[in-house]
Amino acid sequence: MKTIAEGYTKVILEAENPGQIIMRFKDTASAYHAIKRATIAGKGAYANRISARLFGLLADAGVENHFIKLLSDNEQLCQKTDVLPLRVIVRNIAAGSIVRRFGIEEGTAFKTPVYEMNYKSAQLDDPFMNSHMAVAMGFVSYDEMEHISRLAHRVNEVLIKVFADCGINLIDFKLEFGRTADGRLIVADEISPDTCRLWDKMSGQRLDKDRFRRDMGDIIEAYREVWKRVCGESDENK
Amino acid sequence: MKTIAEGYTKVILEAENPGQIIMRFKDTASAYHAIKRATIAGKGAYANRISARLFGLLADAGVENHFIKLLSDNEQLCQKTDVLPLRVIVRNIAAGSIVRRFGIEEGTAFKTPVYEMNYKSAQLDDPFMNSHMAVAMGFVSYDEMEHISRLAHRVNEVLIKVFADCGINLIDFKLEFGRTADGRLIVADEISPDTCRLWDKMSGQRLDKDRFRRDMGDIIEAYREVWKRVCGESDENK
Repeated sequence: MKTIAEGYTKVILEAENPGQIIMRFKDTASAYHAIKRATIAGKGAYANRISARLFGLLADAGVENHFIKLLSDNEQLCQKTDVLPLRVIVRNIAAGSIVRRFGIEEGTAFKTPVYEMNYKSAQLDDPFMNSHMAVAMGFVSYDEMEHISRLAHRVNEVLIKVFADCGINLIDFKLEFGRTADGRLIVADEISPDTCRLWDKMSGQRLDKDRFRRDMGDIIEAYREVWKRVCGESDENK
Repeated sequence: MKTIAEGYTKVILEAENPGQIIMRFKDTASAYHAIKRATIAGKGAYANRISARLFGLLADAGVENHFIKLLSDNEQLCQKTDVLPLRVIVRNIAAGSIVRRFGIEEGTAFKTPVYEMNYKSAQLDDPFMNSHMAVAMGFVSYDEMEHISRLAHRVNEVLIKVFADCGINLIDFKLEFGRTADGRLIVADEISPDTCRLWDKMSGQRLDKDRFRRDMGDIIEAYREVWKRVCGESDENK
């Protein structure tokens, strides 16, 4: 299978059907613009399973996304889209960069979700971008920006409930969006402990990539815990 | 008169009427978070006159603002408001920080105006802020944010025409907003070559604070030129 693109944590491969792609999840962890990297055996498989499950639940809730089906431990089949060069961050509770940028305490709950956006450009250090700039750069129209906001809002509603039901607080997460051949914008990329902050409701324990970012150890145990809770012990491909 | 607040370029003084304030424009120039400073004799008077004239024209166009009347060369009487801790930047043509942040060429015209916002916090280095964060921080409601957007849009329409009529391209400018005692949000602070980028239509010459920022010389000549064109040679208090 021909490689279309390779990032720090995933490889995108051609599929048999030219309208589809295969996402292969690697065991690589990467943080701080890939300044910090490591290999964590088993991480790719957990991220693949968790993301597949969450995209499935989103589809069930009417949120159109690129996921088609799991192929193997580390691979899933997805619809091919043109992924927009922007990241949407949805924040329910203050953690990560926003704590430092706005001088607010980690763990502060926002009254309403906070949405932020970055322009994906390693060269420019992924600058903050707002809807006006996304339109000015020609990435989307104002109507599409509205659609993205509604999708992000809906994804947040669904995921908050999914995680709450298994004892996890959804602190924040990142979304990416892809444009289909016929021009629709749908949710793409992955949703996993690599792209979410997930705190155990009871203990407050971090069950996400912050364990890697902040050298908190037991990374694979945290990913396994999220997989167990979200996918269930009975996950046929565990 | 008692000083209420003093910044790099202005002093805010109590007025006789407790619902009003006096803004005194200083001859100080300041840039790059006040790392670069200088005294430029006459700058305060020009900024005071130009701002008074522009706020007058905005009021004529139905844009409610804090300006009441000129008091002297360097002072104007204004309505007292609680100024919001945010700056709105309106950009018609790419210049300044956006050029570097997004890797676009200086002078590129945006198809539609780009609005940006900063949280005014010297301690936090005035971070970028979007409407969600402004609401989350409790500064405004979403409805008020909408009102601010409409005001900024309208101010831009009026100012583009005012400057175009005297041979100047309005590249970008900064706005501040104040909350009146009865809760309305109105345009506050100043609008002058200190807070706008103004390029001569014919020559492209910079007629604004960039002359100071970038050591382009003849700062007071540029301010005088803007004053002459905007206020007219006949300005009674020149």
